[in-house]
Amino acid sequence: MFQQFTNTHSGKHGPERLAALREQMQTEGLDGFIVPRSDMFQGETVADCDDRLAWLTGFSGSAGYAIILADQAGVFVDGRYRLQVREQVEDCYTPIDWPEVTLRDWLEQNAAGKIIGFDAWLHPVNEIKTLRDNKADVELRAVDNLVDKIWTDRPAPPAAKFFAQPEEFAGESAASKRTRLAEGLREAGTTAAVITLPDSIAWLLNIRGEDVSHTPAPHAFAILHDTGRCDLFAREGKADEIMDHLGEDVAVLPFEGFEAALLQLSSPVLIDANSCPQIVAEALAGAEVETFEGRDPCVLPKALKNATELAGMQAAHDRDAIAMCRFLAWFEANSTSGITEIDVVKTLEGFRRDTNALRDISFDTISGAGPNGAVIHYRVTEETNRTLGTGELIVVDSGAQYQDGTTDITRTLAIGEAGADERHCYTQVLRGMVAVSRARFPVGVNGGHLDALARQFLWAEGMDYDHGTGHGVGAYLGVHEGPCGISRRAAQIPLQPGMVLSNEPGYYRNGAFGIRVENLIFVANVEGGIDAHRNLLGFETLTYVPFERKLIDKALLSKEEVAWIDAYHAKVLDKVGPHLDLPTRGWLSAACAPL
Amino acid sequence: MFQQFTNTHSGKHGPERLAALREQMQTEGLDGFIVPRSDMFQGETVADCDDRLAWLTGFSGSAGYAIILADQAGVFVDGRYRLQVREQVEDCYTPIDWPEVTLRDWLEQNAAGKIIGFDAWLHPVNEIKTLRDNKADVELRAVDNLVDKIWTDRPAPPAAKFFAQPEEFAGESAASKRTRLAEGLREAGTTAAVITLPDSIAWLLNIRGEDVSHTPAPHAFAILHDTGRCDLFAREGKADEIMDHLGEDVAVLPFEGFEAALLQLSSPVLIDANSCPQIVAEALAGAEVETFEGRDPCVLPKALKNATELAGMQAAHDRDAIAMCRFLAWFEANSTSGITEIDVVKTLEGFRRDTNALRDISFDTISGAGPNGAVIHYRVTEETNRTLGTGELIVVDSGAQYQDGTTDITRTLAIGEAGADERHCYTQVLRGMVAVSRARFPVGVNGGHLDALARQFLWAEGMDYDHGTGHGVGAYLGVHEGPCGISRRAAQIPLQPGMVLSNEPGYYRNGAFGIRVENLIFVANVEGGIDAHRNLLGFETLTYVPFERKLIDKALLSKEEVAWIDAYHAKVLDKVGPHLDLPTRGWLSAACAPL
Repeated sequence: MFQQFTNTHSGKHGPERLAALREQMQTEGLDGFIVPRSDMFQGETVADCDDRLAWLTGFSGSAGYAIILADQAGVFVDGRYRLQVREQVEDCYTPIDWPEVTLRDWLEQNAAGKIIGFDAWLHPVNEIKTLRDNKADVELRAVDNLVDKIWTDRPAPPAAKFFAQPEEFAGESAASKRTRLAEGLREAGTTAAVITLPDSIAWLLNIRGEDVSHTPAPHAFAILHDTGRCDLFAREGKADEIMDHLGEDVAVLPFEGFEAALLQLSSPVLIDANSCPQIVAEALAGAEVETFEGRDPCVLPKALKNATELAGMQAAHDRDAIAMCRFLAWFEANSTSGITEIDVVKTLEGFRRDTNALRDISFDTISGAGPNGAVIHYRVTEETNRTLGTGELIVVDSGAQYQDGTTDITRTLAIGEAGADERHCYTQVLRGMVAVSRARFPVGVNGGHLDALARQFLWAEGMDYDHGTGHGVGAYLGVHEGPCGISRRAAQIPLQPGMVLSNEPGYYRNGAFGIRVENLIFVANVEGGIDAHRNLLGFETLTYVPFERKLIDKALLSKEEVAWIDAYHAKVLDKVGPHLDLPTRGWLSAACAPL
Repeated sequence: MFQQFTNTHSGKHGPERLAALREQMQTEGLDGFIVPRSDMFQGETVADCDDRLAWLTGFSGSAGYAIILADQAGVFVDGRYRLQVREQVEDCYTPIDWPEVTLRDWLEQNAAGKIIGFDAWLHPVNEIKTLRDNKADVELRAVDNLVDKIWTDRPAPPAAKFFAQPEEFAGESAASKRTRLAEGLREAGTTAAVITLPDSIAWLLNIRGEDVSHTPAPHAFAILHDTGRCDLFAREGKADEIMDHLGEDVAVLPFEGFEAALLQLSSPVLIDANSCPQIVAEALAGAEVETFEGRDPCVLPKALKNATELAGMQAAHDRDAIAMCRFLAWFEANSTSGITEIDVVKTLEGFRRDTNALRDISFDTISGAGPNGAVIHYRVTEETNRTLGTGELIVVDSGAQYQDGTTDITRTLAIGEAGADERHCYTQVLRGMVAVSRARFPVGVNGGHLDALARQFLWAEGMDYDHGTGHGVGAYLGVHEGPCGISRRAAQIPLQPGMVLSNEPGYYRNGAFGIRVENLIFVANVEGGIDAHRNLLGFETLTYVPFERKLIDKALLSKEEVAWIDAYHAKVLDKVGPHLDLPTRGWLSAACAPL
């Protein structure tokens, strides 16, 4: 679980591998071939054996595509990777600004009338639909993956076996989940749902896996029948240790049998066209099985954490807060002693390991000092590693996977004393976070409606941040989880009790500093308003770790904001203090004193 | 333009008229017939000759439907009219809670397999599409209007002629508007647009009319061709005085020729299915002319007021503010002297007439004292008229039509001294209005994203209001205008410079009191933020009339809120003061003193 600080795909083999791929294209009668970063599970992380884009092009970002034509090859990367891609890919590739230029735009411009191959396991139904809906007679043809044919030293798939997530953490038996989802399928008039998202399967069957780093979701596909029975398709041996746990209503079948199983289904079958691989739609169409396109039926119930899951999340956050507070005390003592961004990552991870409960970190820690803090998705490497400079800020965004819950926390810290400008901006960011934390709102409001609360103080002064205010978070699952968020771009699904979200406004001044403050919160009913007939919702906080008081400009705060922060800090001291040694507890007392 | 205080359709003829309608149904071989409140123009107000629903049933609300079957008859009314309908309709009608029960729901329950007639001029395309998409084999059949056949003393259509809105107020010639909209039609690949909304036609051709009260929109239909030429279909004589103004590229044609003209169009023709009468779709389909469903092309450009229109709106508001301030001074002197809600309406209207510029009021004034203030859409009648009681609040929501602009303002006033509860609630409502007024936000934000700013202080205490925070407002046109609004239910169209909106949070305690504070504002670019690359938008205020300081609890306000209110009041005094006589100016000085 230790974070790596090198890019593993930095070897330079671009021209040879590209030439080999073009040979394959010619053999197959194709004018081009698309290589997405995604694997068939559409997650944020892929296993080494699925990292085709990095192997082929050298580009190691977490999203993107390559399209190879006979005479040119584009690598499509988003705003985070515009500099990185130029360092990683060789001259034989042309970086393309995606999604400003879409794959379809580029194909229309560069491949009119041509035949472009793609691997139907790797692209969701809607992605292929969009590409096929082009105005330049580009033909999209499903073929066997051409990269796999030339990748002779391809790593083996992850071997780790699936394991059970017991009901003491899940709070509901898998049988109960299957039963209620099957009822939904029958109500919708569908006979079965094809489920291809690993965290959906993890939630539905109360299982976990270790197939990719940081997210304990199992690489598998499933078909849930309207009877409540379920077929789980997994590579051989992966499910050996969960057979009893799964029970007799779940059939474990070889992954190779998945396509054949689709052909046996009766119409109509529910698929989620935003995540379901195109191969599924093609198999069902070939067998004349009708599809019903809707949302993966696990996604919303998974987002609504039950009481057991919320209790687990709270326990995980309380445990994580002890590690964070130990880290913060260490940081305060050492930040001006020549430590580096990597020292910060390693030390923080060490405190989390000391909990003896850490399963994994929940994502690569962001540790960005000075100007590196302004790079929103910064990941420190040996090349970029920066020694912390007095007067700078550092953004530390990190999280942990424990069996009872997933954490995600950002604190921005001052190295020595901070300047007035940094304090001003930090305080306005913090006020936004507090405004969301304090928000109450009626049923029907979605996260997009609350986003302005987090930004209002920045907007008032001509500032903003180019990311959402919050994302959903799983319970010992993905640190980024749909469908809800606090964002103008999130799905417009009303907030409901049990949804766990991040609350993380920020501010980034290019070349100078970055600021982000992040707590996790969950939606809960709020009692006791003036009008009893209004059922208002609000947020409860999961994360209890002090804010950087050196960066708070109290003069900017309202009475209510001061009261909220003081009450928050009092609760931090109450929760965490008893678990610290005396010197650290002394540090915490000072950090949590009323403003 | 004087407001009426009686319901003109209160005669009791329900059973006879219903029996006559049923006879017509039988003659036509129908099992039922739908009578909407709407006319073919889908506006909020209908001419007397089009008020079929009120003539037939007695129900005089501003929205609703009746469906007549052989053995029952339902009158569909929304939450505003649940009490009123029971007083107005006789036993032969059954009130139905609409839209909780939709017309389709009710037809599926009560008219399975039956043939229901409707007048294809009165229902938008999408409404009929929804009704036809029923699960009970209800057949919807377009027929001549059966009410018209039995309504022997039906009033004549409005005779007032259309008149020009000169470029000095419109800010852009009609020729220029036609040219740029025609370019949009060509870009969309359409040959023509059918325009059936009167305010769209008013804007496009820079004309106005007097066909309904309060909204100066002409009753006419138009076809805009992709050449920029336009056909205007109007009843005989209506356009006599604007022939020169319209010019040679606008053909004035008899209304009776509209259907025949549709048959001559080439595919595809743009229609707005949310407002275009079903008769248009049927005519085009009959002639095998393809339709392209999109938004009426005038709606968005009309919402983006140009500099001349904004200057006119400002002049109209400054003029209206003088009338309002004179009214407020009168109110302060007389409110505890036994005046009534109707006295308030008449006096305010008198001050507006004194401007010598009043064309009409922009809607029936809402003047609701005590518990009447809690009825959001209250309209005072002789029956409900209430003498103002000391200690009560009164909500006064009113507006004017001037040739240079339309106004809409709400002030909540204290009659004598107000209680602490009322002051608390008023102040929280006012804070919401101030928060929206002060908001800055980036391009891309829509009104739904800002709605929470207006409600946050109420939500925090378990309060809310059951209406939008703001609606679009026309320039000497409809006081309610699409497509934008400050509401979670408004169209999700990004706010853009030139959009004029109301900003009117409220609070209503049933049986006790109501509160609403409303200014008009418009979207404008904001200069001078910290990050110059961020193009932020904000609001500028049109309405400058003092708030009720007796209702402001200063202890609840932040420093910034106090500063905003003080600066606002200073501007009121500056703008309005010089236009008042000495005693009234003295009153205004006190009303506008710093808090």
